[in-house]
Amino acid sequence: MQKKSVYERGVYYYETDKMGIVHHANYVHYMEEARLFFLAANGYDYSALESSGILSPVVGLSCRYHSPLRYGDSFRVIVSLSSFTGLRFVFRYRMEKKDGLLVFEGTSEHCFVDDKGKPIFLKRSFPDLYEAFSALESLEES
Amino acid sequence: MQKKSVYERGVYYYETDKMGIVHHANYVHYMEEARLFFLAANGYDYSALESSGILSPVVGLSCRYHSPLRYGDSFRVIVSLSSFTGLRFVFRYRMEKKDGLLVFEGTSEHCFVDDKGKPIFLKRSFPDLYEAFSALESLEES
Amino acid sequence: MQKKSVYERGVYYYETDKMGIVHHANYVHYMEEARLFFLAANGYDYSALESSGILSPVVGLSCRYHSPLRYGDSFRVIVSLSSFTGLRFVFRYRMEKKDGLLVFEGTSEHCFVDDKGKPIFLKRSFPDLYEAFSALESLEES
Amino acid sequence: MQKKSVYERGVYYYETDKMGIVHHANYVHYMEEARLFFLAANGYDYSALESSGILSPVVGLSCRYHSPLRYGDSFRVIVSLSSFTGLRFVFRYRMEKKDGLLVFEGTSEHCFVDDKGKPIFLKRSFPDLYEAFSALESLEES
Repeated sequence: MQKKSVYERGVYYYETDKMGIVHHANYVHYMEEARLFFLAANGYDYSALESSGILSPVVGLSCRYHSPLRYGDSFRVIVSLSSFTGLRFVFRYRMEKKDGLLVFEGTSEHCFVDDKGKPIFLKRSFPDLYEAFSALESLEES
Repeated sequence: MQKKSVYERGVYYYETDKMGIVHHANYVHYMEEARLFFLAANGYDYSALESSGILSPVVGLSCRYHSPLRYGDSFRVIVSLSSFTGLRFVFRYRMEKKDGLLVFEGTSEHCFVDDKGKPIFLKRSFPDLYEAFSALESLEES
Repeated sequence: MQKKSVYERGVYYYETDKMGIVHHANYVHYMEEARLFFLAANGYDYSALESSGILSPVVGLSCRYHSPLRYGDSFRVIVSLSSFTGLRFVFRYRMEKKDGLLVFEGTSEHCFVDDKGKPIFLKRSFPDLYEAFSALESLEES
Repeated sequence: MQKKSVYERGVYYYETDKMGIVHHANYVHYMEEARLFFLAANGYDYSALESSGILSPVVGLSCRYHSPLRYGDSFRVIVSLSSFTGLRFVFRYRMEKKDGLLVFEGTSEHCFVDDKGKPIFLKRSFPDLYEAFSALESLEES
């Protein structure tokens, strides 16, 4: 179990806009990439979760843009599970350039639903996943 | 039945890239918007087609970029069904700025498959749709 | 001067993801479309602002997703300027389906910078724009 | 000098559409990623080229979709410079899944322009780049 994951990649040209910087909507993509990377690093392949009937839609986002990314930049996303209530969970993100410059901070909030959109009570329906998420969350607090 | 449809909209800011022009991948979006607009204008709501079990994936594209679009530009896409064989069909696209300047020409090729990805023989399985597409295609020739 | 603008459009097919709903990053696009529509409706063409050397990057976002949008849905974005300090301004967004169902609520925070990224003190450098934004903001309060 | 480059990555969740497969427009992104990777691997950083005043817009695309990519898939793009006339150049792409299954074949055609959009005669203005591209192109023929 990893307290946090560090996800890295470079900016793609098509992610820039006419201001010459990465368009702000693309950071929401980076958050998703980093989140699914974190889950995979902890043994949860999201496509396998979906195949077993668990969907995890985004219910909220917060984003703070500190310094722009440009084409040619590499960056890392430090991602952790910052809270988990059994019904909802929150991921926290910090993006930095290679030299450590703070680029972005944000959070995303999620719930678990079945393929009809009905909320899943993880503790009852998927106790293993419940235990795992609880363990990941307590790790971040320490 | 309409021989061709004219689909219009303006460029969105996020569709530009650091060159200051619409990124070339977004024209593939415009082709899709115009194609589904054409189908709707001829009585075929694509979401209804999908609900009835017909998927229509893209099997080929050709794109020729004549003059760039920029944020602030409005454009129209003239779209028509240029061929239909019962198994495959080809749409043709011409994009122009408001003043008539040629922006883009392209084609997209599609087939019909069921939700398992198996080819659908339209004439046998959906004779009404077969007749309708045949009619649309012969219209373009005239 | 308009207290708020109502921006309308339908979902594009390519905006959906494998969950069958509009991917959450695309709402950030909708916010931008609606914001630039609001500015244009109040006489501020954003491409003209940029040409005069004023850039207005996004410094923060908050998003709350209430009910998913799907391909085939039409929606409206009700957008207003909710605060303006001379240095920063905040837009507020409410998205609804045609039948009034609440889809999304969010805010975006922006600043004004010149083409070197230096903050612009609007009151000093662009007093007309300062007055206009002040007027728009006070309208929302009423 | 490399005859061809092999660029690899996995599918991102947000690249899928409601058909459950990667939306066809995203392959145009993959082509760009692979092309810029190829240029970098041969010593041409595209952001450096742009800084020196050389832009290289896309003038044409052809795409053939053989087998869909899905979330969870990894793929490679085999990219090479297939022709170079001094004024225009064509890249060729072949995408495969990890197991070798053919996914996509395509080409992209480009020209060189300056930041006013005027064509650049590479042989005269940038003879080193002209030699390098000629060398890359002749390699592919062999």
